Amino acid sequence: MTKKIAFLKHKAYNMRRWSVIAPAQAGSGHTTTCLSAADIMSVLFFYAMHYDPKNYECPDNDRFILSKGHASPLLYAAWAEVGVLSDEDMLTYRRIDSVLEGHPTLRFAYTEAATGALGVGLSIGVGQALCAKLDNRDFYTYVMLGDGETSEGAIWEAVQLAAHYKLDNLIAVIDCNRLGQTAQTMFGHALKRYEEVFSAFGWETFIVDGHDIQELTDVFDKARKVKNRPVVVIAKTIKGYGVELLADKQGFHGKALKKEQAEQALANLEKKFPQAAAFKADEYSWEPQVPEKCKAPVVIKRSLIRMPKPAYVSKEKIPTRKAFGQALSVLGDECNAVVSLDAEVKNSTFAEIFEAQHPDRFFQCFIAEQNMVGMGIGFDRRGRMPFISTFSAFMSRAHDHIRMAAVGQAKLRLIGSHAGVSIGQDGPSQMGLEDIAMMRCLPESVVLYPCDAVSTYKLVEQMANYEGGISYMRTTRMATPVMYDNAESFPIGGCKVVRQSNKDKVCIIGAGVTLFEALKAHELLGQQNIQVSVIDLYSVKPLDVATVTAIANASGNNIITVEDHYPEGGIGEAVASALRNSNIKIESLAVKRLPRSGKPEELMALANIDADAIVKKVKAIV
Amino acid sequence: MTKKIAFLKHKAYNMRRWSVIAPAQAGSGHTTTCLSAADIMSVLFFYAMHYDPKNYECPDNDRFILSKGHASPLLYAAWAEVGVLSDEDMLTYRRIDSVLEGHPTLRFAYTEAATGALGVGLSIGVGQALCAKLDNRDFYTYVMLGDGETSEGAIWEAVQLAAHYKLDNLIAVIDCNRLGQTAQTMFGHALKRYEEVFSAFGWETFIVDGHDIQELTDVFDKARKVKNRPVVVIAKTIKGYGVELLADKQGFHGKALKKEQAEQALANLEKKFPQAAAFKADEYSWEPQVPEKCKAPVVIKRSLIRMPKPAYVSKEKIPTRKAFGQALSVLGDECNAVVSLDAEVKNSTFAEIFEAQHPDRFFQCFIAEQNMVGMGIGFDRRGRMPFISTFSAFMSRAHDHIRMAAVGQAKLRLIGSHAGVSIGQDGPSQMGLEDIAMMRCLPESVVLYPCDAVSTYKLVEQMANYEGGISYMRTTRMATPVMYDNAESFPIGGCKVVRQSNKDKVCIIGAGVTLFEALKAHELLGQQNIQVSVIDLYSVKPLDVATVTAIANASGNNIITVEDHYPEGGIGEAVASALRNSNIKIESLAVKRLPRSGKPEELMALANIDADAIVKKVKAIV
Repeated sequence: MTKKIAFLKHKAYNMRRWSVIAPAQAGSGHTTTCLSAADIMSVLFFYAMHYDPKNYECPDNDRFILSKGHASPLLYAAWAEVGVLSDEDMLTYRRIDSVLEGHPTLRFAYTEAATGALGVGLSIGVGQALCAKLDNRDFYTYVMLGDGETSEGAIWEAVQLAAHYKLDNLIAVIDCNRLGQTAQTMFGHALKRYEEVFSAFGWETFIVDGHDIQELTDVFDKARKVKNRPVVVIAKTIKGYGVELLADKQGFHGKALKKEQAEQALANLEKKFPQAAAFKADEYSWEPQVPEKCKAPVVIKRSLIRMPKPAYVSKEKIPTRKAFGQALSVLGDECNAVVSLDAEVKNSTFAEIFEAQHPDRFFQCFIAEQNMVGMGIGFDRRGRMPFISTFSAFMSRAHDHIRMAAVGQAKLRLIGSHAGVSIGQDGPSQMGLEDIAMMRCLPESVVLYPCDAVSTYKLVEQMANYEGGISYMRTTRMATPVMYDNAESFPIGGCKVVRQSNKDKVCIIGAGVTLFEALKAHELLGQQNIQVSVIDLYSVKPLDVATVTAIANASGNNIITVEDHYPEGGIGEAVASALRNSNIKIESLAVKRLPRSGKPEELMALANIDADAIVKKVKAIV
Repeated sequence: MTKKIAFLKHKAYNMRRWSVIAPAQAGSGHTTTCLSAADIMSVLFFYAMHYDPKNYECPDNDRFILSKGHASPLLYAAWAEVGVLSDEDMLTYRRIDSVLEGHPTLRFAYTEAATGALGVGLSIGVGQALCAKLDNRDFYTYVMLGDGETSEGAIWEAVQLAAHYKLDNLIAVIDCNRLGQTAQTMFGHALKRYEEVFSAFGWETFIVDGHDIQELTDVFDKARKVKNRPVVVIAKTIKGYGVELLADKQGFHGKALKKEQAEQALANLEKKFPQAAAFKADEYSWEPQVPEKCKAPVVIKRSLIRMPKPAYVSKEKIPTRKAFGQALSVLGDECNAVVSLDAEVKNSTFAEIFEAQHPDRFFQCFIAEQNMVGMGIGFDRRGRMPFISTFSAFMSRAHDHIRMAAVGQAKLRLIGSHAGVSIGQDGPSQMGLEDIAMMRCLPESVVLYPCDAVSTYKLVEQMANYEGGISYMRTTRMATPVMYDNAESFPIGGCKVVRQSNKDKVCIIGAGVTLFEALKAHELLGQQNIQVSVIDLYSVKPLDVATVTAIANASGNNIITVEDHYPEGGIGEAVASALRNSNIKIESLAVKRLPRSGKPEELMALANIDADAIVKKVKAIV
């Protein structure tokens, strides 16, 4: 055995110790899943990966994503062994004042991706690997998966796309420890099954004994030499490896050892790995393989982005989804960080306008919304600015990935087109009617809903400059007339008072397609000498409480909200919630029943969110 | 050519005509994707499937699911050719008064599954096929997929599970027409690629020319003979087949033909298929292959379910998730329709208690939440009563499937455990903090959130009897004391007033884990002579507005809501929205920032949703 191999075994041994100690100290955590993967981690961190541990953000470092996020003690142990965490740090695992959380989050500066919902990490890796290709960087992205998590469909979305884009800079490792939380995985230890599937999808595969350090080093050497296809290393491991009590036994998933058990386990490890335990740090001098380019410090900067004024013609009819595509294309001119990801609906979302101008920065993600959002997290992490588009209804397919993006504080820009019943004949399956609720309910999120081309254009610029978290824009299928002057500004958190008089009896709040119904109602009511104010609530979150309150106060303290969305979590509830302790009366028109196919105007009438419904409601109030 | 083949070609020809005519008449719809699949549909409906067209609900009929729901004209055309739709019916396609919607919904009585979001149908089929096995029925489930939709991960979840359960009564057909909406699919016409992947996953595969009727009949004959594994028929087709303008051309996806184009297309079809066009109906007498058992009419009934009174001991600490498992097991005794689906967390959700008692009706779905929910739709459609459990956080993974279940009016019973920050050290990725918003925002949904074992038990019974749509129960990780008498009842739409005096200054509304914080606050405030009422809002939707209003009126018109959930779409907004036009002041405590790892009590304090936070808020009011 070479000194190097002995050293790697020693590191694995140390990581196993931490995998016992840290959860035992915390009173919770997943020890067994760490014990299975410790040898792989040792080889990755101290042999395979090229990176500068003193400069984590160096853009040429290889990247490591722990997709099986419950093995967090192992991730922290690896960084402890690298030297960036102290023993004291390790003992803070899962404490409320610690950055070493139960599943990795970005609070720990060496976490590449927040994980914990399974089946997300590989997609993030696909994003990073594609980003490396785009940026002409040589780094590799390593993703460690659990075998259990390969039942998640999101994995196979990522697998297909990685092969499609020939990502030979992406190396996945599956820790095949056979046992899930309560059952054997579907493939168990039949590693050939994984090999066959990955191979069929176009990946290069290596089967390896996940506890044989020498074999692992050989395989990871080979993995870096594969060209034109992504690589998966399928490692046969034993869950709980090294500790008799736990090894290959069901019933210990997510169980931390009690104090005595932990002491026994540590003794057990020492007995099982005597050489690794006895290895002295000075027997081998490890030097990280720092990438050439990293030697000079790299500073990534992104300043305020200003787009040129648009040149829309008043009253011209343009769908906001199309204005989005136009704006994104212009934004792409101004800012080369922008990338566009679309789920095979680019001629519906109009991401195709961006693609036509910036083909190298457009990524066809096919019909796989989860993977698309996961990729977005990867692009964001590597300094790009992803705009991610599909039908608003299908954003729900990626809800968990969006949720995890929020946990990971990724700055995704999401665009959901074809919102609401106003899409018409395609019917309820294609109508985004829950997207506002879904997107409002994310920490630090921004929810925008423009009604015309000018506001869409301006809000794309706002999204580009929003760095606080996830921003979402809802766009409309049908063409709507240009309402605003090209010089108008649309700050996040604002609204527009588009009709106002000194005789207003009610304030009507619309957004997107319902703004025009509100305007029609304004006109119809005006003919009957009933004056109403109208607000365009283009920023649903944050909501401009001050302006809405002031206008409502000047409108008889009456508000009617109108939205092409289900009532719960939508605009009506947002307004009712924001103004709850005022003396303003609020009525809400929304889509209250499952809609159907029909013409847009018929459906809006059926849902009572059209001008007639507004008129009726106003008359019932005044 | 036999008469039978000629007949099948004739039916395919007729369906192609409808695929042109119906969308052209409607002014929208997907013609080209129907033209590619028409021959397959003809063989399925008039050759392969065994069913009684006059008795659709017969439980022994073979089932057909159109997973590529945008090919709806073809589905309707098939049923028109069978004879259950008239020409006049067909011309109502996509009209607001028609059941022939843009994508199939259950409004059309012959739709087996509402589709339109891609990648859902196969999972529904897996549920149906498993249900057939459970019920000892011989019917087959056929699912038609688009090739584009195989990029959806949900497909591969279904593929894995179908192989795991050896569903040889499930036959999928992929209409490989090569072209997606804007791009060639990843595999294009390389049908071998599909074969390799499906085969690696354990399926039997057949490659076939999707326009060769004879070949199709042979393959579907073979498909029914396969044992111990599901079957996929991979059909090479041409998008737009039969119409020159459209055939194999990009740019026509989702485009209905204009009147003149349509006439040209019909002429084109006649020219391309002269024999099929000239075929006379009386040349061949088609008789459906009616399953033996169908000859007697079958009536499925389900009456009101009553569970025996539970026997919980007052103040005993039991997690609501465990009480759910206990209740489900008892429910399983009372009602053999009940099945339990769980995503490899049965010892966390406690579905394992049901499994222990009813192993034949428990289905391990592994870590694949989308497929699990899709399967539930299938079980529901075939008369079973699925209870579907996983962590509440991971319900978000299946959001689109749940949305589609609502579109399909499926009666799913969903159970989300480990809600909120109160789970503690596992951290934000595992905390359900958006599930109430997601579940409230479904038409006809019910959202329940019990605080103790008795209410959990009783609410499981309520869910069993709720047939109006989707019901959701949120359960808690930590143990909570039994609050209620075993005789207490918990109707959907009710609430419990658990503390009340004639001196109340504020009404505190809690639910689940926060109810106990409210009770603690009640006690602490009482010691300072501040009286408050406390409501257990176990039914978040529908919400008991009358009781809440009455108690708030008697509590100084003040409400404080406390919830372990993000503010948007949660309990606070639900209450604020319901009471918007009252004179009641409402303050809400909720999780307003991204949480972290820590002890449950620390996290509840950090989020300001614990007793101390309530006390502080009350004092700020009184």
